[in-house]
Amino acid sequence: MRKEFEFLSNIKRQFNLDKIGDDCAVLPKNSTHDLIISTDLMVEDIDFRRDWMIPKLLGHKALAVSLSDIAAMGGKPVWSMLSIGIPHDIWQTSFVDEFYDGYLRLAKKFNVELVGGDISKTLDKIVIDSIIGGEVKRKKAVMRSTAKVGDLLFVTGKLGGASAGLQLLEQGFRYSDDEKIWRKDLILKQLSPFPQIVAGQNLSKIATSMIDISDGLSTDLQHICKAGNVGAKIYADKIPIYKKTNGLTKNFAEQLNFALNGGEDYQLLFTVKPSKAKGLPYYYIGEITDKSKVVELKTDGQNILLEPKGFQHF
Amino acid sequence: MRKEFEFLSNIKRQFNLDKIGDDCAVLPKNSTHDLIISTDLMVEDIDFRRDWMIPKLLGHKALAVSLSDIAAMGGKPVWSMLSIGIPHDIWQTSFVDEFYDGYLRLAKKFNVELVGGDISKTLDKIVIDSIIGGEVKRKKAVMRSTAKVGDLLFVTGKLGGASAGLQLLEQGFRYSDDEKIWRKDLILKQLSPFPQIVAGQNLSKIATSMIDISDGLSTDLQHICKAGNVGAKIYADKIPIYKKTNGLTKNFAEQLNFALNGGEDYQLLFTVKPSKAKGLPYYYIGEITDKSKVVELKTDGQNILLEPKGFQHF
Repeated sequence: MRKEFEFLSNIKRQFNLDKIGDDCAVLPKNSTHDLIISTDLMVEDIDFRRDWMIPKLLGHKALAVSLSDIAAMGGKPVWSMLSIGIPHDIWQTSFVDEFYDGYLRLAKKFNVELVGGDISKTLDKIVIDSIIGGEVKRKKAVMRSTAKVGDLLFVTGKLGGASAGLQLLEQGFRYSDDEKIWRKDLILKQLSPFPQIVAGQNLSKIATSMIDISDGLSTDLQHICKAGNVGAKIYADKIPIYKKTNGLTKNFAEQLNFALNGGEDYQLLFTVKPSKAKGLPYYYIGEITDKSKVVELKTDGQNILLEPKGFQHF
Repeated sequence: MRKEFEFLSNIKRQFNLDKIGDDCAVLPKNSTHDLIISTDLMVEDIDFRRDWMIPKLLGHKALAVSLSDIAAMGGKPVWSMLSIGIPHDIWQTSFVDEFYDGYLRLAKKFNVELVGGDISKTLDKIVIDSIIGGEVKRKKAVMRSTAKVGDLLFVTGKLGGASAGLQLLEQGFRYSDDEKIWRKDLILKQLSPFPQIVAGQNLSKIATSMIDISDGLSTDLQHICKAGNVGAKIYADKIPIYKKTNGLTKNFAEQLNFALNGGEDYQLLFTVKPSKAKGLPYYYIGEITDKSKVVELKTDGQNILLEPKGFQHF
């Protein structure tokens, strides 16, 4: 079967499209800065479900996932566009007002100006394409392809919360004031992620490579390794697991599965030279190796091969 | 019922979003140029039907409609992004290869580089968001809002072909080698529009306002009048009607309806000062008046009020 990432590699090669493949495309802007741009498509019943969703949080998330792409380049977000397809029955409700309200509140927080977009009718499903533009200092965008052997691997925050929240939603729990605090918290990790713009900018001077954890650590680390033609070794006991997953399961293997393969935490995964790693307020999880495209997980004294089990559409 | 254009006006006002509302948003780029960007959402069974479509032409059209937005600003296209949602059964076919082939051939023609995008699965419908970026000389983007009373109105080409083609498709005709030439031609006007990039660039120095005819002349002229707080008078006998519509109907009122209300011709509608109009190789259709937001159609000695009857999603 045709795989999404392979299809994109083929298109890239065939048409010589070398700007495709990072969190953002980097384009020349002026003498001091480059333009960075990205787009994220969110489809109802694939990327979210209507009965899980609070329209305001969906608006927030639509922008947050794009802001996260800017963060992953070490950039500053500047403008955005929003394309939205809406079924007629939803158009008649307060959905769009609340959706735009959530979107524009987050935009204001990061000084992002919504400058354009498109609205279309759909037959029955909501679809959202979130487009973002930002800037980085010239030639200073942090790519995913530039990790070097010996670099240390870090993540900016705890992992697994969004995936645990997704499991709760799938079990029938919903965000509500009456819900237990830990469940509300996990569900919010899934519905309302917070983009690591500030961390990304702080890291832009020292990170040798960076990516946002949208598909899941195992898959996004594989992206870093493939793009940079390097390998990686990470340590199970170093992976920072979001504490409230305890409410759902106290089994470490299950918690680790949330953290490794769940995705949607929108923390940043990055590498630095060992000399720059001291005192970094982030989580060290492993290092870059010379075993090209091989990702190893060290657990209980064993090295196991870590397959990319994060999210893939096709 | 909530109307699309009103909803957008409200959002603009409420959140002070003054870059929304033209074919492209205009943003500062460097000391010599501005960045212009736009996005167009195309939804299966709303904007196109799968059984009408040749994947290659759908790819062409996805980019063409965005190029047309650049043309309407008098700009030069530079880069593009493409978000596409595809049902699993379509993903398994050669659809995506042919679609990208059509898209990238047109991109090559205009020196546009595809720099990013997103692919998502959908449950059953294809959805496409086409994003484009380009440039214009600093402060020289041609807006839709700047027509002045006394300016003359022109269109760059004949109108009604795309709409007549749509009617043929709705009647069950399809693009095929065996089909009559005039039917093939009209169907291609609908399925494979050609963006007026060259005309737009030629006009960038003299046009006082410009818009592309995507929704239909009656609606797009209304946009120029609303945005510029002016009125317009156009002459039925001056409107250039695409000749091959004759095959479908010889009734002038029906042909005029295609040209006025059909949309998707992707010609440019623009205004110039009378002193600049001489010898222009385009079609003069009327003039800008001081009757704010009133569009009149002069036909058979009568002045009738022209309602915007072009395409509106909601």
